[in-house]
Amino acid sequence: MIEDKTPKRTTLTDLGEFGLIKHLTEKFMVSHPSTEKGIGDDAAVIAPEEGKKLVVSTDLLIEGVHFDLSYMPLKHLGYKAVMVNLSDIYAMNASATQITVSLAVSDRFPLEALEALYEGIALACKIYNVDLVGGDTTSSTKGMLISVTALGTAKPASIAYRSGAKPNDLLVVTGDLGGAYMGLQILEREKEVFKVNPNNQPDLDQYTYIIERQLKPEARKDIVELLEKLNVKPTAMIDISDGLSSEILHLSEASGVGCDLYEEKIPLDPQVISTCEEFNMNSSVPALNGGEDYELLFTISQEDFQKIKGNPNLTVIGHMTEKPEGNHLITRMGAKIPLKAQGWNAIN
Amino acid sequence: MIEDKTPKRTTLTDLGEFGLIKHLTEKFMVSHPSTEKGIGDDAAVIAPEEGKKLVVSTDLLIEGVHFDLSYMPLKHLGYKAVMVNLSDIYAMNASATQITVSLAVSDRFPLEALEALYEGIALACKIYNVDLVGGDTTSSTKGMLISVTALGTAKPASIAYRSGAKPNDLLVVTGDLGGAYMGLQILEREKEVFKVNPNNQPDLDQYTYIIERQLKPEARKDIVELLEKLNVKPTAMIDISDGLSSEILHLSEASGVGCDLYEEKIPLDPQVISTCEEFNMNSSVPALNGGEDYELLFTISQEDFQKIKGNPNLTVIGHMTEKPEGNHLITRMGAKIPLKAQGWNAIN
Repeated sequence: MIEDKTPKRTTLTDLGEFGLIKHLTEKFMVSHPSTEKGIGDDAAVIAPEEGKKLVVSTDLLIEGVHFDLSYMPLKHLGYKAVMVNLSDIYAMNASATQITVSLAVSDRFPLEALEALYEGIALACKIYNVDLVGGDTTSSTKGMLISVTALGTAKPASIAYRSGAKPNDLLVVTGDLGGAYMGLQILEREKEVFKVNPNNQPDLDQYTYIIERQLKPEARKDIVELLEKLNVKPTAMIDISDGLSSEILHLSEASGVGCDLYEEKIPLDPQVISTCEEFNMNSSVPALNGGEDYELLFTISQEDFQKIKGNPNLTVIGHMTEKPEGNHLITRMGAKIPLKAQGWNAIN
Repeated sequence: MIEDKTPKRTTLTDLGEFGLIKHLTEKFMVSHPSTEKGIGDDAAVIAPEEGKKLVVSTDLLIEGVHFDLSYMPLKHLGYKAVMVNLSDIYAMNASATQITVSLAVSDRFPLEALEALYEGIALACKIYNVDLVGGDTTSSTKGMLISVTALGTAKPASIAYRSGAKPNDLLVVTGDLGGAYMGLQILEREKEVFKVNPNNQPDLDQYTYIIERQLKPEARKDIVELLEKLNVKPTAMIDISDGLSSEILHLSEASGVGCDLYEEKIPLDPQVISTCEEFNMNSSVPALNGGEDYELLFTISQEDFQKIKGNPNLTVIGHMTEKPEGNHLITRMGAKIPLKAQGWNAIN
């Protein structure tokens, strides 16, 4: 018997819209007790948890703008699309509970591509304990687009807005910064190399961490749990999707305060530092302006410092000031320069 | 002084993403007491109404697939994008309370175009008493895309799923059907005429109703209120976005029943009938297969018939049967033919 070695390729029109949604979502199990009805009706039905508030956030990811399928595997893309949204829920100091995922795809994508995408979504749902409860699947005239809405819950007293920071509060960041941006630089460079020589097999071993930061970021669910355990309520919080500078300015503006940020305190992974050296770049640049790290940035009252001190997940990188003092970066050389949302020139 | 008559045209890059969101949404007021925090943080915060369930639905609208800007004014598009989603909430027999709107646009759209779109969204929010609480605005490589998520609330006992219809229940539809589809036929025809002769001024007076059904549909919030007033709880409900046949089949399948639908009972507006004559088309075709009417289709127990009898908004068009009997259309000629989701051939 001769084996058919052509990779399986089912066109989307073979299935139709309803068949497609059913096929892609039939393996999704509902695990939250609050999810009373998931996919399959005009709307999902959720039982609000008693005494808790609901939080809602939504984000769009567009091919050619937010992702490049020439180096982004579809499974990773599905995972990342969920992470981007859960990160916003955790940035409210809330628990994520449900998501909806809408997808627009051109007919250049076979069914198997969407199956890979939904595998990534399913993995994210499983690891982060959220239910997929709805969505829409439609054809697009060009490329792929993913729209995710995430729902979560929080005790009223726990919710952290951007607006609660006070002068003298400490500015704290989770994990390390700049990795996602430097990972993107490596992937873009390899894409160019591949264009010139498609037989070149890149050795990316020394970039594993930063490439994973770009392709498979993790949202900081663990931090929300950690803060509860440490009995620390952030006075203000935001997630880092657009780079540290931009997020600090959002926090300061919403809270009506200023900020002093210390360049030497910004946590950087050794791979970020070595890759920046390779690119002849100041290693603070990707942290300040790179974005996509999906770490959390928050402020705490000084009296809470003892509770977080020494925790390897948390780094104090500055403190808030009175509003008229403005937002500044104190460089490694001790210079005090205004913090800008796109401060490349300021520190390069 | 010489007046500058060039129409105002501000490019989106002049504003930047954050400036754009702020500009487009600053006039939106929050009116629901349950909306604690709308736009401006990582997520919206909503206080669940005590003793009520939450319902969530989401839909994508894509240029070139779901709308054609050559005859769809942007203000109408904004309005319709909200209607499409609210309709899903009302189809659960629930009240709509909040929406999020995400938008992807290519740089061919000036700011003024997006302002028109948001005017339509604002009008829909005002008339239907829902709050815009979040969203995302981003650039697209081609065209425009709108993703709306709607939230609503309902008393647990009021929620109408697709799955509750029983044999002998009456099948009821609101308003009249086929108008949106015939309106689209007129708009498409005029577009072709315009291509040949751009100076031709079409006289569309006789098509006002059906064109409005296509360009500015209304979701049936009033029906949810009416049913509550009449003390009627639908045993099953769905909204008509894809045509009556398709929706009946969804209801029957989810409920595990069959259905007899009477062609002569299907409510049609005189403009639908006259336009169908003009197009030499059986007037049941747009009702059965046209879609986009956003009416509600529901089943009620026979004992509730007296409560709805004679109400001009509600028409009994058939009844449910045992599952093995299947789904049938009883034609005006008395023939009994299987109901199909795309039954054009069956009745033409």
